[in-house]
Amino acid sequence: MGTFHYPNGKKVTSVTKTRSSSSSSVKKEVSYSNRGMSLEDDINQSNQFYLLTNKAIIHKKPTPVQIVNVEYPKRSAAVIREAYFKLASTTDYNGVYKGRYIDFEAKETKNKTSFPLKNFHEHQITHMQQILDHGGISFIILRFSSTDESYLLDSSYLVHYWKEQSMGRKSIPKGEIEEKGYSITNGYQPRLNYLETVDRVYFYPSL
Amino acid sequence: MGTFHYPNGKKVTSVTKTRSSSSSSVKKEVSYSNRGMSLEDDINQSNQFYLLTNKAIIHKKPTPVQIVNVEYPKRSAAVIREAYFKLASTTDYNGVYKGRYIDFEAKETKNKTSFPLKNFHEHQITHMQQILDHGGISFIILRFSSTDESYLLDSSYLVHYWKEQSMGRKSIPKGEIEEKGYSITNGYQPRLNYLETVDRVYFYPSL
Repeated sequence: MGTFHYPNGKKVTSVTKTRSSSSSSVKKEVSYSNRGMSLEDDINQSNQFYLLTNKAIIHKKPTPVQIVNVEYPKRSAAVIREAYFKLASTTDYNGVYKGRYIDFEAKETKNKTSFPLKNFHEHQITHMQQILDHGGISFIILRFSSTDESYLLDSSYLVHYWKEQSMGRKSIPKGEIEEKGYSITNGYQPRLNYLETVDRVYFYPSL
Repeated sequence: MGTFHYPNGKKVTSVTKTRSSSSSSVKKEVSYSNRGMSLEDDINQSNQFYLLTNKAIIHKKPTPVQIVNVEYPKRSAAVIREAYFKLASTTDYNGVYKGRYIDFEAKETKNKTSFPLKNFHEHQITHMQQILDHGGISFIILRFSSTDESYLLDSSYLVHYWKEQSMGRKSIPKGEIEEKGYSITNGYQPRLNYLETVDRVYFYPSL
C-alpha cells in the first residue's frame, strides 16, 4: 500500500486540534464538509449507542498509518515523529450484528444529483466483493450533505457501477440510489439509525 | 482511550527501520521475541494466503494512533509529526469465514509453563465477551515461543481466567491451554494454519 495524500486534509480534522505552533511547514485550514456533524461522527456516535444498548458490536477501524520514525523519551510515552497516511485496503467499519458479519464504508458528497465514484478506490471495491462472496453483509452508506439525506446501498450495486466506469460514467445518479438503496432515518439516539435499515434490507425484507 | 507506552517498544519493530539519524532522543534497540518470524508476521502471511486462495477474508486492524500534529508540505504527502500509540479497544484481527464473523487476538510469551494474562487488557476481554454474546467466533492464538507451540483457545476460557485474577492467579497454566485449547499446525503455506483449527473447533467438532 502506498502513501496517500488526502487532497483536502479532511480525514484528520478531528485530530489536529493541538498543532504545534513552532512548525514552519505549510498547513491547510480544517474545513468541515457540512454544517452539523460529519457522517463519520454520526456513525461513530450510533455505533457507540449500539454498543451500549448491546444491539451490535461494530467499530471503526483505526486510520492506517505508515510509521517511519519513533522516539522513546525517558520516562514518558513513545512519540511518533514521522508517519504518513496510507490508503486503506478494506472498508472503515465492520463487526457483528445478529450473528452476521457486517462490513461497510460511509461517504458523503456535496453533489446534489449524483454520487462521485472517486470517493472509493479499487482495493475497497475488491474487498466488498470478497465480503459478499463469503456470505458477509456488505454495503455503503451514502450521504447527500446539502439535503442531509442518507442511503444504504448494497455493495453489489457499487461493484456494478464501478465496473461500468470504463464506459464513461464516473458517478451513481441519485435516482438510482433512491431506487436501489434504502433511506436511513436521522434521529437523536442513535443519530443515524442504519441498523433499522439493515433489518429492513437483510433480515426482514418481507415486512 | 488513553495514550499507551509500550514498555519494550515491541509493537513498532516492523515499522522503525528508517529512523532519522538526526533525532537526539533516546531510542531503544529493536528486539525480536523469537529467532524466526514473529507470531504477527506468521498470521499476516497466513491471512494473505487465505485471501489469495479465497478461503477467508481476515485482516489485521491498523495500529491505533492518536494524531496530534500534521504538516501539509506543498506538493508532497502530509506528514504526521506528532502522534502517540493508543490502547486498542478491540482485538487485532477480524473478518469473515464461511459466512461467520471471526475475531481474534494473538500473543506470544517466552514463559514455558504458563501464559501471563498481562498480555491482554480489560477492553479486549470486554470486546471478546460481546462478540461471543452476538454470535461471533472469538478466540485467542497463544504461542509459547521457546518451543514454537501455538494454540487456539476459545475466548470464553480467557474471560473465565481473567475474572479469576482477582483470586490471585495472573496467568493461564500451560496444562489448561493444552487441555481446553487446540494446537495449531505450523507449515509453509500458510505458515500458521489456524483456520484448519477453526474448522475443527467451530465448524466440524464431531470429526
